[in-house]
Amino acid sequence: MTQKDLASLRVNRDRLMGDLHYTCQWGPGEQWGDAATETGMSRLALSDTDKQARDWFVETTESLGCSVTVDSMGNTFAVRPGLKEGPPTYAGSHMDTQPTGGRYDGILGVTAAVEMLRTLNDNWVETEYPVGVVNWTNEEGARFPISMVSSGVWAEEIPLERAHELKEVGGGSATMKTELERIGYLGTTPASYKHVPMAAHFELHIEQGPILEAEQRKIGVVQGVQAYRWFTIEVKGRDCHTGTTSFAHRADALLAASKMILYSHRAASRVGALASTGILTLKPGSTNTVPGTVRFSLDLRAPKDSVVEEVEKACKSAFSAIATGEDVDGLNKDCTPSNRQCSVSWTTDSVSPATNFHDDCIGCVTEAAADLFGADATKLTKRMVSGAGHDSVYTSKRVPTSMVFIPCRDGVSHNPAEYSTPEDCAIGAQVLMGAVVRYDRLRAERGA
Amino acid sequence: MTQKDLASLRVNRDRLMGDLHYTCQWGPGEQWGDAATETGMSRLALSDTDKQARDWFVETTESLGCSVTVDSMGNTFAVRPGLKEGPPTYAGSHMDTQPTGGRYDGILGVTAAVEMLRTLNDNWVETEYPVGVVNWTNEEGARFPISMVSSGVWAEEIPLERAHELKEVGGGSATMKTELERIGYLGTTPASYKHVPMAAHFELHIEQGPILEAEQRKIGVVQGVQAYRWFTIEVKGRDCHTGTTSFAHRADALLAASKMILYSHRAASRVGALASTGILTLKPGSTNTVPGTVRFSLDLRAPKDSVVEEVEKACKSAFSAIATGEDVDGLNKDCTPSNRQCSVSWTTDSVSPATNFHDDCIGCVTEAAADLFGADATKLTKRMVSGAGHDSVYTSKRVPTSMVFIPCRDGVSHNPAEYSTPEDCAIGAQVLMGAVVRYDRLRAERGA
Repeated sequence: MTQKDLASLRVNRDRLMGDLHYTCQWGPGEQWGDAATETGMSRLALSDTDKQARDWFVETTESLGCSVTVDSMGNTFAVRPGLKEGPPTYAGSHMDTQPTGGRYDGILGVTAAVEMLRTLNDNWVETEYPVGVVNWTNEEGARFPISMVSSGVWAEEIPLERAHELKEVGGGSATMKTELERIGYLGTTPASYKHVPMAAHFELHIEQGPILEAEQRKIGVVQGVQAYRWFTIEVKGRDCHTGTTSFAHRADALLAASKMILYSHRAASRVGALASTGILTLKPGSTNTVPGTVRFSLDLRAPKDSVVEEVEKACKSAFSAIATGEDVDGLNKDCTPSNRQCSVSWTTDSVSPATNFHDDCIGCVTEAAADLFGADATKLTKRMVSGAGHDSVYTSKRVPTSMVFIPCRDGVSHNPAEYSTPEDCAIGAQVLMGAVVRYDRLRAERGA
Repeated sequence: MTQKDLASLRVNRDRLMGDLHYTCQWGPGEQWGDAATETGMSRLALSDTDKQARDWFVETTESLGCSVTVDSMGNTFAVRPGLKEGPPTYAGSHMDTQPTGGRYDGILGVTAAVEMLRTLNDNWVETEYPVGVVNWTNEEGARFPISMVSSGVWAEEIPLERAHELKEVGGGSATMKTELERIGYLGTTPASYKHVPMAAHFELHIEQGPILEAEQRKIGVVQGVQAYRWFTIEVKGRDCHTGTTSFAHRADALLAASKMILYSHRAASRVGALASTGILTLKPGSTNTVPGTVRFSLDLRAPKDSVVEEVEKACKSAFSAIATGEDVDGLNKDCTPSNRQCSVSWTTDSVSPATNFHDDCIGCVTEAAADLFGADATKLTKRMVSGAGHDSVYTSKRVPTSMVFIPCRDGVSHNPAEYSTPEDCAIGAQVLMGAVVRYDRLRAERGA
């Protein structure tokens, strides 16, 4: 087939949505909110319903002519042969969900890759090299508490033993290894990029944010994943009676924390980063007692590591000053100075450097979108950085990688109300297939 | 005795501290912190240890020549006869404590009043009218959840039935009435100022705040109790992913709440009021999810009702503006504007108007302090407003009332580390007795 013929291949929207909703019969969550036609999902990794979804994946891809390999993390690789031997160009994602998740996060990426296989078969397309579809295990980290753990083992960034010994959350005794055995997905192939090589990895995913929808764009061409650092901040002041202690004698840990949270937002705003506090606890917790201790989380993100570091540095300096009562940034305007100080301490919980996807893959996604949109490509496409982590972060450490984002309603994800239109799902699947086929052709042109 | 002779009467410090620590044998709490010589208290109202303390009070005051009356709330009135008939001038407080309370809050006021009886007896003082000592029931509201409930019934501000039916916190089935019966303190005299009249009520108490200590003063002459209002504020935004949602698309309930808490401090500072947040909870509570809901308490206080109302009004207006993203007071400096808004709603949990004590009683406390301090009286005495509620709030609704405050270490109270020096306790007892005796003489002079 010519490049022009390949660009005119079209996925089947209804068949794609059929597969997506068919696989959602295993692990449906409860009805939620106003999503009248949609039901959330609760398919925890390596559960009985996850096994059912995996069985469907194996049977379906085998029926489409693929050979299937299961590795020692349960990652499942289905390979459709090409004209030549060599590592396949993969499309993939995951079929596990959050406990109160939606139908699109992960599931769309796998079913769109299966739709790619169906479309290639229907059109008798022979790719130059093999094409693969992968279903990664426990991407969510919801049941076994490390996100993207199995692509991490494949990339040799996480030791197999550590992953196998991960216990399920909530105090149960099951581990990843015992559950892989129980459901029959503890494969004999070592989970490693050395044993299951890839030429490249493409992943279709809902954006999980509101940008595409707000800008009325249809495709996000993902350049990489932003850096993030997680911290726990503890502010220590002094408990005291709200009625008997004047402002001048207080060390109010919550007032200080409030200034810090506001400051972190300002500091991040100044450099185009993100700062968020999602957890805040205080002691002792009584209406008439000024809190003596406040602990809060701080999640800093930016596309560049240096920007995250800059915000961290600014916050560290400002928080110390705020704790001791110095005026930072005009926050103390009209506040009563106190003769007591708070103290502040930081714990670093997580450091995740920025990920940059591969120019070749980014180029293939861009061109696949252009094939579909034609003259509207610039208007409908957006280069963007993923805010959340994905299995593609780990594959990008070993092979060229990029991702395709589509809009999701109100930016909602990890929630049963998660929703993308069938049209947008099909557009995403179309661009995913186009990118894989273009990458395959690129390899052939380069003779690699 | 002449006024001069009366002014030269002295309480006995060691005997006072002996009584105080003797009665603390019933309900001692665990050792706590660095208070090497002190142990906290845990004597909940109408418990077995409260009964033991009450028995001591009855036996001791009867042995000092008093007649004792127990009313239908267990309030216990010990009366030492005077030269004439008439309602007694009372000193009193309470012997129940917080679950992890100290040895001084309440207990000092009762034992100092007993020390007054001992001193009057030792010196063969005959007062013009009877002098009384009262131990009020369940002032703390820690076991039965209304503070100052029994002086409230006495003042006919709280219905007897409502008080009797109060259930203990924590899900037990005991009520105030069943527990009064069980420990033998359900008296037959109706709990009412009409059946147990008082001429006046004086109360010695630790300050429970840091002002006297910080200013190196020894006696607070309490002018009244400040007004307060308690609110619960709920801020509703929208949960979203911290990594995938730009600031421009967020409705961050915690960022809004942080601005509100800071604003409330500024608004109170501007008019000499107090604003405090002691409770804050949020949902859903995950490092990588922006909170969609935050609830926090707001405790506003000021000596004048109008000032509390002013701060409330300012906060109500500002919180609404903050929720919708308006810049209030420069708080939005360098913040990223958002196209999503939060909403805010208020619940009023409690409204307590300002209490003004009686000029005659305030005068007696002032003069009693002057008798003791002489030329240093101005330096060592401070006119002040109580930040916390006391039984004196309810007595002041029916009879002339004032209070005497002494310093406590670091302003700490409701805590086992609560501490006042024996010297300061004795000074407080001395001023309490002086005020009672002066009030008694005042009544005689006025022929009332």
